[in-house]
Parts: sequence; C-alpha cells; structure tokens
Amino acid sequence: MSPVIALLTDFGNKDGFVGAVKGVIYSINPNVKIVDISHEVAPFDILEASLILKATYKYFPKNTIFLTVVDPGVGTDRKKIIVKTKEYIFIAPDNGVLTLALEEQKIEHIISIENQNYFLELKSNTFHGRDIFAPVGAYISVGKEPEVFGPVITEYKKLPDITPIQEHNRILGKVIKFDRFGNAITNIEKLPEKFKVVFKGYEISTVCSNFMEGKNDRPNLILGSFGYYELFIPQASLKDSLNVQVGEPVEIFHI
Amino acid sequence: MSPVIALLTDFGNKDGFVGAVKGVIYSINPNVKIVDISHEVAPFDILEASLILKATYKYFPKNTIFLTVVDPGVGTDRKKIIVKTKEYIFIAPDNGVLTLALEEQKIEHIISIENQNYFLELKSNTFHGRDIFAPVGAYISVGKEPEVFGPVITEYKKLPDITPIQEHNRILGKVIKFDRFGNAITNIEKLPEKFKVVFKGYEISTVCSNFMEGKNDRPNLILGSFGYYELFIPQASLKDSLNVQVGEPVEIFHI
Amino acid sequence: MSPVIALLTDFGNKDGFVGAVKGVIYSINPNVKIVDISHEVAPFDILEASLILKATYKYFPKNTIFLTVVDPGVGTDRKKIIVKTKEYIFIAPDNGVLTLALEEQKIEHIISIENQNYFLELKSNTFHGRDIFAPVGAYISVGKEPEVFGPVITEYKKLPDITPIQEHNRILGKVIKFDRFGNAITNIEKLPEKFKVVFKGYEISTVCSNFMEGKNDRPNLILGSFGYYELFIPQASLKDSLNVQVGEPVEIFHI
Repeated sequence: MSPVIALLTDFGNKDGFVGAVKGVIYSINPNVKIVDISHEVAPFDILEASLILKATYKYFPKNTIFLTVVDPGVGTDRKKIIVKTKEYIFIAPDNGVLTLALEEQKIEHIISIENQNYFLELKSNTFHGRDIFAPVGAYISVGKEPEVFGPVITEYKKLPDITPIQEHNRILGKVIKFDRFGNAITNIEKLPEKFKVVFKGYEISTVCSNFMEGKNDRPNLILGSFGYYELFIPQASLKDSLNVQVGEPVEIFHI
Repeated sequence: MSPVIALLTDFGNKDGFVGAVKGVIYSINPNVKIVDISHEVAPFDILEASLILKATYKYFPKNTIFLTVVDPGVGTDRKKIIVKTKEYIFIAPDNGVLTLALEEQKIEHIISIENQNYFLELKSNTFHGRDIFAPVGAYISVGKEPEVFGPVITEYKKLPDITPIQEHNRILGKVIKFDRFGNAITNIEKLPEKFKVVFKGYEISTVCSNFMEGKNDRPNLILGSFGYYELFIPQASLKDSLNVQVGEPVEIFHI
Repeated sequence: MSPVIALLTDFGNKDGFVGAVKGVIYSINPNVKIVDISHEVAPFDILEASLILKATYKYFPKNTIFLTVVDPGVGTDRKKIIVKTKEYIFIAPDNGVLTLALEEQKIEHIISIENQNYFLELKSNTFHGRDIFAPVGAYISVGKEPEVFGPVITEYKKLPDITPIQEHNRILGKVIKFDRFGNAITNIEKLPEKFKVVFKGYEISTVCSNFMEGKNDRPNLILGSFGYYELFIPQASLKDSLNVQVGEPVEIFHI
C-alpha cells in the first residue's frame, strides 16, 4: 500500500505553488495519496508551522511522509533534512520547524539532503518545495531509503523553548497563535489543580468542558485541540473582541 | 469500489484541522477518496452550510458519505446523527445543517451516534469533527452499517423555514448569502411568469440567461447554480457596489 | 493508469463550487486523481490564470488534463475548447486563458466543445465548470477521444502580448502579478548581461541568487519560480511596503 504524503507550507492556496508540488509528486509516484495539512501558515512563521505539525501528525497513518516547507532561508546554506522516526518520516528545511513534533517522537536517524541526482533542475533558488522537497518525498514514497539522499547527521535545529516561565509566585505563559475562530491558543499545556489565570485584567479559575459553557462577556478557558489551553468567547472571536495579539501575557497563580 | 467521503465544515484551511480529519479517515480507510466541498463556511453559520450542501450533494456519486461539521454546540448534549437516504449518507451534528438537503431526499433511517467504541479517545471536547465524525464516516466507508453506531431515532432538527413570505399583494424574499464573486443569492426559487422585483430601489422585470447580458449600472437577476435567483452586476461585486447585507429585502410583485 | 485532472479556476474555496465540479468528475470516473492548482485566481482575471497555468503545467505527469475555468463570458457564445498538445490536454473557455501555456507546447489539434450529449442538463447558464467542462474532462480521462465532443477548429483566442516594450534606449516592463508573499512578478524573462533596473525610484543592478541575499530597505531582483524576474524584500511584502500596484512600470537600461 502506498503511503500518504502530507503537505504543510506557507505557500498559500492562490498562486499555484502547491499545484506544482503535487504535479512533481504524482510524476514520480502516481499512486501516492497527498493530503494538505495547511498552506495558509503565516508567511515565514516557523513556529506556527511547528505547532500545526505537532497538533496533526499523530492522526496520520504510520509511515506517512510529512513535507513541512516554511522556508525563509530557501537557497541559502541552511540544511535540508529527512528525519526518520519510529513511526513517521519528516522532510523539511533545517530551521526548527520540526521541533515540537520531534520532541514527542523517537528519532531513528537524520539525513542531510544533498544528492542532487534526485532534485529537479534548479533554474532558480526560490522554490525548493517544488524542486527538492517534493521529489525527495516522492522517491521515499516509492521505497527509496532516506540514506540515498545524503549523509547521516546527528543534530537538527531547534526552536527556542516556548514553555511558560516558572517564576517565584506565578507561571508566565502567553498567547502563541490564533485559530480561524479567533480563539487564542496559549503555550500552557498543564494547569495546577487550583489556579487563577489572569488575562487582560480578567480572572479565570475554571476550565470549560465545551465552548457553549463559556460566558459571552469575558474570556474563558478550555483545553483545545492543539493540546494547549485556549482562551475563547463562545461563537465569537476573542481575538477581535478583546483586541489580543500574539505574545499577550497569560499569568497563572496557584491558589 | 470505495466510496467518496465529502467534507463540508467551517474549520478554515489555515489551522490544520482539516488535515487532522483526513489523517484519521485515511488511518481507518486508506482507499477512500476524500473531497473537500468547503471549509470556509462562515464560522458557526449553519444556514450557509445547509445551502452549500443542498447545492452540491446531488453532483456526487451515489453512496457518497457527507461529513457536514458546522458545530457551535460541540461537546454539549446536542445529538450527532447519521441520516441514510435512498442515495446518500449524511453525518452531522443535529443542529439543522442537513435541513435543505434532506428536504429533497427520501430518508431511510436516522441514527443517533452514541457508540464510543468507534470514537477516538476524547482528550478535549472541542473537536468532534476529528474525534467522532471522522472515524464514524471512515468506518461507514469500509462497510460498517450505520446501526452499529447507535439507536435509530425518528426526528432530526430542522432550520426555520427560509422560503419567501407570501403577503397580500407581494412576495417578500431576501438575500441569504453572497458567493465569492459578490453575487447575492436570494431565497427565491420561482418567479411568477410576469413579475416586478424591487431591490434597493431598483426595479427588475427580466431574468438574464447569462451574466454578460446584465447591465453594469444596476442589479440584474439570473437563476444561479445554487438553485435560487441571484442578483448580480457583470464582472463586479454587487455586494460591494451596492453595499448589500445578508437579510436585505427582495420584493416580488405580480404584474 | 488513470490520468490526473488538474483544476485551475476563480471559483474560490468558499462556496462549494469546486466540490460540485469534483463530484461530477468522480461520478464519471471514480479512479481519476484530481489536483487543485488554484481556485483563488482573482475573479475574472484571465491573465493571472494564464500565468499560473504556464508556471505549473509542465510539472504534471504527461497526459494530465487541465481544466482552466476563468470564464466571465459563461453562457455567452464564446467557444469552449479542448486543445490537445503533444504532452497534455487543455480544456477551457476560449478566452485567451491558455495563451501562455500553449506558446510553449506543440499543438496537435483544437476541438470546439459542442456535443451536448456529454453535458449535464443545463438548468442555468452560470456554471459551465460543473455542467460542461467537468464532464468533458472526466470523459476524456476515461478514454473518450477529444473529437467526439465537437468539430476540429484551427484557431484559439490569444491574450494581448505581455512582453516588455523595446524602446530606443530602454526596455519598459511592468509588474503583472503579486504572489501571496507580496513579491511582485514582472513580465521580464531576460535581462541584459549588464543592466540597470529602475523601479519606484530605486536603481537595481544585481540579481540575488536567494531571497536572504536581498536588502531589507529597498527592492531586490530575483529570477522567480514563475519564470519571470521578481521584485522582493526579504521576509516582507514588497507590495505593501512600497504600495505597488499591478501595472507599475519596471524600466531596464543597458549599461
């Protein structure tokens, strides 16, 4: 059975970039299944892509090949890597975009993609998603071993730690992303049994078990599908209602 | 032959929600075909999803499984249903989203989805599209009978009637949706043989047979692909040009 | 092996139009692979679609069938054509949208689509993508010869020439499109060995080999993935930073 290739990029759905990538993949492996995770990652936003990858990869069949191409350094000497874990194969520019997913995975080996025999002819240096990552992913999907694409390396680049900061009498978290509903995803994965969260001057001390339990006139907390606590207002955009930005502090106090 | 699973949601194409849903489906049925109808339904807009489903489902192969997940009540006690009709299978939260499609279909039976054996482990209550609707749809696509997912029920929730109001000397319709071109879709499916439509102070008494027949300086009428009459301006956005809102009245007079 | 049908339209991803097209195709050929090139072409923008088609088609497997439906004249007497080239099959309204791709392809024959036996029943004249182009593409994908759909014709409509204007002491190019990153794609495919480009008062005399080589405080040049030179600012939107419009002049001087 042919595996799945899952695509996660900041290419947008407007310019045909994703279509070209798929054309390259199907030219090499007509039987693969291609799934779009997202192409609307904010341009150059490596952290957002890393969060989305972490939140989604584990729902895919084993042996899925993830092409995660948010690549502001395209064409520079940044590495391009294949990371084979026990369950999946991740292909990406080596800029930290795999950080959050790989924290949860047992890495078997890391390959630096260097073997140009498997690249398309590089007429420009602006679109390695199409010219390098797509053919490499497609050749892996037809059974090429990752080792043919280059040497084994031992390190990959990691993003700065995003976990909340433990202080004397509080934990300092923050908003790290908004979803399309305007819910604010925080970097908080766990809360003390008894807590008070302070956000934009509001105090919150309960966690809702569904969105409709929330109050309409203030922010509410819920454990969301990204695996982090989210701030929300039922059937409204908290982002717009309270004019929140990424980075907005979320303070946690034990009580 | 494996059937098609068609997805219609308000999840957006940005956050990876749809990717997770597809990962779940392919993990259960690697051979199914998944088609996106739309994921850009306005957040929580059950009527818009119902209109889009009505306009599209009949173009799909028989036995297609439609997952229609616009679900503001996710995690509350709202039911989750499977509706088997003579030709198709519809899976959705029981909030009215199936109303307009089911008006045209012969219902064979309705199942309340309750059998947790087929759900993913529910770590949060915010994403039943991924954790409940996706696996249920996938298991149906591999041949599970709808009855295994829960008891047969006799009713499903319906949206309020959207047909125009018959008054003494006029029929009162309205704009119910805009498409991406800025055309205004009305709730009018039929017009009298001789009529005068009044909209935003303009009188219209003819129906165009194509968009280019329309006048550039005023609204024009055409029977559109949603099955309703639409107001439009050729190669321009009527919505923006005339500053129209959903709900805007469209009066019909017999002449 | 079943071929690929690739879709390029201005239908948007919001209203379900694309879903209906895919439903029609799968109803006729359940085994075809459908790839979205883009559905976010600016409404009615035939040139943008032509550029995207040119930039992408050659990455698809041989015998791919391209449905390119940007069709402001839908329902008028504009022709609908199938163009069979040595390598691919292009299906489109005859409004010039195929111009840039066909300049690079060896045309074998052109068919005017007229045989209504292969159309869906036309309840309205607003959606030939669904009612005509989709079934014609699907029937070709199952082996119908293009000739069954109508007579051979000898001409197809071409867009006005978009190449830069050669003047006495300069070449006058322009911006023809922006991509989602805000890069400005020009109509310049070649530059003299020694040149000075003048754009918005800035002088540029070098071509970057990757985006990160660019300066942050001024426009930079690179040969982009559309096959044209692009103006950009690294990790920023040149469009927004310099308030550029489509049509903005780009002057080239030999030095």
